[in-house]
Amino acid sequence: MLAIETVHSMVVGRELHALRDAIIDSAPAEVAELLSLLSTEERVLIFRILPREFAAEIFAELDVDLQSTLLSGLGDRHTARLLDEMAADDRTALLEEIPAEAARKLLALLPKEEREVALTLLGYPEGSVGRLMSPDFLTIQQDWKVREVLDHIRAHGRESDSLDTLYVVDSKGVLVDEVSVKNLLLASLDDEVVSLMNYKFEALAVQSDQEQAVELFKKYNRPTLPVVDSAGVLLGIVTVDDILDVQEEEVTEDIQKLGGSEALEDAYIRTPVTTLIQKRAGWLLVLFVGEMLTASAMTYFEDAIQRAVVLALFVPLIISSGGNSGSQASTLIIRALAVGELRLKDWMSVLRREFIAGISLGALLGAVGFLRVLIWAQFVDTYGDHWLALAFTVFFALLGVVTLGSVAGSMLPLGLKKLNLDPATSSAPFVATLVDVAGLILYFTVAMLLLSGTLL
Amino acid sequence: MLAIETVHSMVVGRELHALRDAIIDSAPAEVAELLSLLSTEERVLIFRILPREFAAEIFAELDVDLQSTLLSGLGDRHTARLLDEMAADDRTALLEEIPAEAARKLLALLPKEEREVALTLLGYPEGSVGRLMSPDFLTIQQDWKVREVLDHIRAHGRESDSLDTLYVVDSKGVLVDEVSVKNLLLASLDDEVVSLMNYKFEALAVQSDQEQAVELFKKYNRPTLPVVDSAGVLLGIVTVDDILDVQEEEVTEDIQKLGGSEALEDAYIRTPVTTLIQKRAGWLLVLFVGEMLTASAMTYFEDAIQRAVVLALFVPLIISSGGNSGSQASTLIIRALAVGELRLKDWMSVLRREFIAGISLGALLGAVGFLRVLIWAQFVDTYGDHWLALAFTVFFALLGVVTLGSVAGSMLPLGLKKLNLDPATSSAPFVATLVDVAGLILYFTVAMLLLSGTLL
Repeated sequence: MLAIETVHSMVVGRELHALRDAIIDSAPAEVAELLSLLSTEERVLIFRILPREFAAEIFAELDVDLQSTLLSGLGDRHTARLLDEMAADDRTALLEEIPAEAARKLLALLPKEEREVALTLLGYPEGSVGRLMSPDFLTIQQDWKVREVLDHIRAHGRESDSLDTLYVVDSKGVLVDEVSVKNLLLASLDDEVVSLMNYKFEALAVQSDQEQAVELFKKYNRPTLPVVDSAGVLLGIVTVDDILDVQEEEVTEDIQKLGGSEALEDAYIRTPVTTLIQKRAGWLLVLFVGEMLTASAMTYFEDAIQRAVVLALFVPLIISSGGNSGSQASTLIIRALAVGELRLKDWMSVLRREFIAGISLGALLGAVGFLRVLIWAQFVDTYGDHWLALAFTVFFALLGVVTLGSVAGSMLPLGLKKLNLDPATSSAPFVATLVDVAGLILYFTVAMLLLSGTLL
Repeated sequence: MLAIETVHSMVVGRELHALRDAIIDSAPAEVAELLSLLSTEERVLIFRILPREFAAEIFAELDVDLQSTLLSGLGDRHTARLLDEMAADDRTALLEEIPAEAARKLLALLPKEEREVALTLLGYPEGSVGRLMSPDFLTIQQDWKVREVLDHIRAHGRESDSLDTLYVVDSKGVLVDEVSVKNLLLASLDDEVVSLMNYKFEALAVQSDQEQAVELFKKYNRPTLPVVDSAGVLLGIVTVDDILDVQEEEVTEDIQKLGGSEALEDAYIRTPVTTLIQKRAGWLLVLFVGEMLTASAMTYFEDAIQRAVVLALFVPLIISSGGNSGSQASTLIIRALAVGELRLKDWMSVLRREFIAGISLGALLGAVGFLRVLIWAQFVDTYGDHWLALAFTVFFALLGVVTLGSVAGSMLPLGLKKLNLDPATSSAPFVATLVDVAGLILYFTVAMLLLSGTLL
């Protein structure tokens, strides 16, 4: 890859031909990365000297911010050229993201035909398959010979966004079947297209959600899927590379929800701080109000604490262990649901497993907690005469709380899914609050049972 | 999709021809899903009646468990046929997963040539690109005409795993360039291959890690990448659908680590409970030992608690708010790092943003906490005469703890990344423990400052 210093010195020395050749030899993604490190002036200069197709390819790889500043630096003629060369779906993504005013200005620069394409794509709802599709594809007729199809590809294939599948349409543009280029290449030149057809194809509805498209791509394992309207007319194609982006965004949203915020719409570093605060305040408040129940629960046991302050010392240790065990269980279950490894009907098996895991892990932590009280009691006076009863209290409380965390953490996502709610959204925080409150009650109840008459 | 009841009744009524036709008309992934709901006997029966290529395709979609039980039910002749028809990379995946004994038996059933291929693939280290590659690809020579290449595809393309890229090799099998089928289809029939070559290609090293392959696929946006040995000899190809599976596993590992367990090697529901416990016990223990510091911190403030038990009541509320804010910040940062939206050099900007966000969210929760004490104080006696000072204590403690959570939660993943450690592994739990201990100290220190002379 080109070093940034080399680019600087080539720009200063005006070795523009050498610079262009060096850039053309690199992969578009690499060039895009390099450009993001340069100044706006250098970027504009480089875009002016690059061949247009290559420039458009790199442009599509840049962040929307960079795209915008670059366009304002390039001037109308270069901008129009660049937009014109971009693939229609990349152009839609750009127009979608920039402010409406700038988008209108850009649309005006497009040739009439391309402008109509852009406006049509922008006419579909945000997040729909329509926004994702490319209108550049090849159609063929079922009575053509393979030889004619190959000639057709040679003549018109250059404008198509993908050349792995050809679409057979009838005279009204209705999609009748798809034929893979692979099968075409394997067939003899005199075969008719119809002999390659099996009338089995999957298509995406133009109005449907992009997340459904991700599911279909996973299910059918295809590089491209056709997009049709309600009458079955072929409108465009979606390619798997666009689907990868949608999928990455989905995973990001899931992870952000797991962390207890609402999903961000933009990259973290580009999200304004005020938006960041808004997205986080909601859940933080809900959890805070939920956690207030811990104060109420503690108030209920105030007398016990008054009599044995030593009980209060273990409160954070005990409730956090329940929270940690709950968070392990809920993340495992949420992810297993998301990738389809687990089904709702498996809930009994999950319950059994988590009960066993919870008891075992609880006994383990309980044993460590028991030892801690036992060892400390030999050296310090904090735990008083009744340290053994206290050690047992800690043991049983941990056993119960960790089991509770494990079971609640696994059942809550399944319950949310059963109610058709998103398990990722709220499981972890809900589990934490539930386990904190229930854990406190459990801890003090055990204490009452084991310590009454001695410490209490 | 075929209903399961329909299949049952067709099996009972021995309408096997109709059943076969119905199954052939469905997508392989659908059939695989349907089969997983049937009994082993029904599955074996269906595999016996299906055409072999289709059977192999479906077989590749099944879980390893199902594959194993099915193979033992099918008998040697059918098993050999099925294995023989499977793509080499799918077969490697199967042999990798089943017990060594069963794998040896299966290998013996393969024809000599296929057995050698399987053994070669299994010779590469686990998790390496070698295990992922398919040895079925098409090579061409640079002095061939496009017409000859098309004839070659027609004659030999059927065995190739992918037909979107052709590989130009020299007489020693060294990869010289790749030519996309798209460019081939667009070129005129009398062009020579060399006229389509630009000597620019990316290849994977056979010994390199599968995760590196994922990065290269993302970077170059290709449907297939060639695999070479250290001498540049072409050994196989990797297709993007295998990469999607590797990527999904990676995300799953990240999410499991975020939840505070070690990554599971198998699906949750197939992981034995004992393994599940082992994978979770480690981190749970580390966290537990870390959280023991909270007991030490509380012991340090035991006198204060003795004098004002009311202080203990707010401990869970205050430390959990810090933990929640820390978990929001760390998940946002970990994910932004994982998708490459954030770089280490942005740390100052992250610090500034998280400080502002933390102060704002802390002030918000603090205000709610303040109100809570203020309102309760009107109705109950728990908070005594000094409720206003207590309300201010809660406010300032929350302000500090939430800010601390936000800042520590964002900086820790960046610090781990800087040290070349995996930010996903341990950030969330470390943040929680750190914030719990520091939060307790902060809370009691504020209390000492504001309440000394009154409650304390």
